[in-house]
Amino acid sequence: NKQANIALMPGDGIGVEVMAEAERVLTFLRDQDDLPLSWEVLDWPSTAWHQQHGQMMPDDAMDQVRRYDALLLGALGDPGPLSEPDRYCLPDGISLAPLLRFRKGLDLWACERPARLLPGAPRYLADPRAADIDMLVIRENSEGEYVNQGGRLGQGTPHEVATQLEVFTRRGTERLIRHAFRAARLRLEHHDEKRSFYCSEKGQAPAQVCLITKRNAQPAWGELYTEVFAEVAKEFPEIGLRHELVDAACMKFVQCPWEFDVVVASNLHGDILTDLAAVLSGGLGLAPSCNINPDSRESPALFEPTHGSAPDIAGQGKANPAAMLLTAAMMLTYLGHSSSAERLRNAVAADLLASEGQVRSCREVTAGILEHMQNQA
Amino acid sequence: NKQANIALMPGDGIGVEVMAEAERVLTFLRDQDDLPLSWEVLDWPSTAWHQQHGQMMPDDAMDQVRRYDALLLGALGDPGPLSEPDRYCLPDGISLAPLLRFRKGLDLWACERPARLLPGAPRYLADPRAADIDMLVIRENSEGEYVNQGGRLGQGTPHEVATQLEVFTRRGTERLIRHAFRAARLRLEHHDEKRSFYCSEKGQAPAQVCLITKRNAQPAWGELYTEVFAEVAKEFPEIGLRHELVDAACMKFVQCPWEFDVVVASNLHGDILTDLAAVLSGGLGLAPSCNINPDSRESPALFEPTHGSAPDIAGQGKANPAAMLLTAAMMLTYLGHSSSAERLRNAVAADLLASEGQVRSCREVTAGILEHMQNQA
Ligand SMILES: CC(C)[C@H](C(=O)O)[C@@H](O)C(=O)O
Ligand SMILES: CC(C)[C@H](C(=O)O)[C@@H](O)C(=O)O
Repeated sequence: NKQANIALMPGDGIGVEVMAEAERVLTFLRDQDDLPLSWEVLDWPSTAWHQQHGQMMPDDAMDQVRRYDALLLGALGDPGPLSEPDRYCLPDGISLAPLLRFRKGLDLWACERPARLLPGAPRYLADPRAADIDMLVIRENSEGEYVNQGGRLGQGTPHEVATQLEVFTRRGTERLIRHAFRAARLRLEHHDEKRSFYCSEKGQAPAQVCLITKRNAQPAWGELYTEVFAEVAKEFPEIGLRHELVDAACMKFVQCPWEFDVVVASNLHGDILTDLAAVLSGGLGLAPSCNINPDSRESPALFEPTHGSAPDIAGQGKANPAAMLLTAAMMLTYLGHSSSAERLRNAVAADLLASEGQVRSCREVTAGILEHMQNQA
Repeated sequence: NKQANIALMPGDGIGVEVMAEAERVLTFLRDQDDLPLSWEVLDWPSTAWHQQHGQMMPDDAMDQVRRYDALLLGALGDPGPLSEPDRYCLPDGISLAPLLRFRKGLDLWACERPARLLPGAPRYLADPRAADIDMLVIRENSEGEYVNQGGRLGQGTPHEVATQLEVFTRRGTERLIRHAFRAARLRLEHHDEKRSFYCSEKGQAPAQVCLITKRNAQPAWGELYTEVFAEVAKEFPEIGLRHELVDAACMKFVQCPWEFDVVVASNLHGDILTDLAAVLSGGLGLAPSCNINPDSRESPALFEPTHGSAPDIAGQGKANPAAMLLTAAMMLTYLGHSSSAERLRNAVAADLLASEGQVRSCREVTAGILEHMQNQA
């Protein structure tokens, strides 16, 4: 394993706090497991836009980040000192722009968000089978509903028309769907008794890809997705197939999430389904996420917890660093350090179970996790 | 109250079964409460497309339905005898077309889907506060993501590009949002202790409209919605305001749905949120829905349960007719027969509680409900 250089980007809001914890844990693992890792901090908070530069990132930001092997992001989106209702009209688009710029500019076209309900995690569903949730949502990350081609005609007049174009390419669709099938094949190799139990109850294969569309109302790309899905599926005869409309999928995520395995969805649908999947696995405090280019490592991958910058609780030490640490574990796997990643994941799980019901600060949670890692060593 | 003439459109799949129950109940209420109601059946199932005419509805379908005061629809969407994978590529768009054609062609621009968790209903959420869910989701029904302006360039080639345009007008946005505020005002007048308890815990007004957008990724219409929301809100100073991004809203629907009151959303976002709201209130077996034009009664309103035609269980007498009956109750209210509607709703609720845990056929459920209405009389 060659030396990897990482950019730590705390961002703003609780991003700053949870990143401090990630740095503690990475330091610990680097020293204990002798990992060939180094990192630098890139301090580009949303608030910089208001306070300093009139922009969030330096002009050469994209060039700067390309120098790293991976980017670890805390959170972005603190609207800063603007007050209502101005904050409605301005800052989201600016403060979150770097996120979308990284995903698109670095061609990180797949977003992966796994959802498992760890013992001890907050549980929102009544059904005890929720303990068996184990799904991976793969989201398109580079096109579709997020191309932001649109605008406002006659802005402010009674005749105003706002348009937004959705653009889907076969190339983008095919690589996404093939990646989902490959992920399902990998999961099949490490396959889990419980999941196969629920699947076989329904007479399905023990690994499955579920395609999400809204083809009954948006046929143009719904049909493209459906056709590409059927074609690529032929390369993976061992994988079961399923299709759900996005509205029905949201419902079934609440009613029977243990019946899902790999789920593949467009940018917007994936955004919605991954947030739902995060709740199913205990909420945003525990939901990791990565943005990758499965075909190439030329650009750095971007790892970020699913949660936002939560300005309402920022700076109070209340944020749960677990999502950030599970995200760091995803990054370690990506960089080839699977056993350190596994160690970290196990410690997060052990700490969660041991501390069930306790209210702890951000630092205390990390301390608990570090202790578990020490004991494992 | 003048004589109203209704079209009963069973549609296909379980629509046929649940509509038969609706007709029994409407007959009972008409006779008992002396309602000035008459109806005719329009038999336009999806399967007609395959079996008979090569189309679902006669050419003059839109003219035919305009003659009625209200349309009561069972369900549509049975793909018919087509087998996989063909059913993926063809029939949704055809079999569901009438639904979207009615909504758009009759200018039924608002869809209302109330969600309350009745005692005895299936419960998916662990938190006991779920008993206090009481929200009304108002969905845009005529434009936005559903305009179906799009297509496929280079279809089938590696260079294929599929596009879909989203179109939002200020006129469409303003009438939608004003309708949501009016609905909130009505709810304020009949306001409920429990809801105001949760709202005031958070320091909010006891009636509230929550706007849904995805303005951080789709700014063009997100900003239009946000600006119109702020403007219209000024006419309703007594109503609290809230904004959620659609992904966060889905999450909060699972985490704390009792904190929502009126929710107003675009066509696609509303589609997703109303399906989620349906789960929260016990699933599709209990979720009513209406499509209305709040400004005009020139065209008939369309009442349909949120569920689809469920071809997998159709014809087996397993479907729950409650959603259809609660939908019929919405129609009765619309036609000015609120006390009959209330009677029907109460009977559905009483029957649900009395029969908790029992597996009953479609007809048995209706029999139970009719019995409760008889006893109330
Ligand atoms: C911040 C926002 C643009 C982003 C998205 O919608 O992609 C976020 O919700 C996410 O899921 O990472
Ligand atoms: C059938 C489909 C087009 C429809 C919609 O998305 O509007 C349905 O899901 C609904 O919610 O009524």
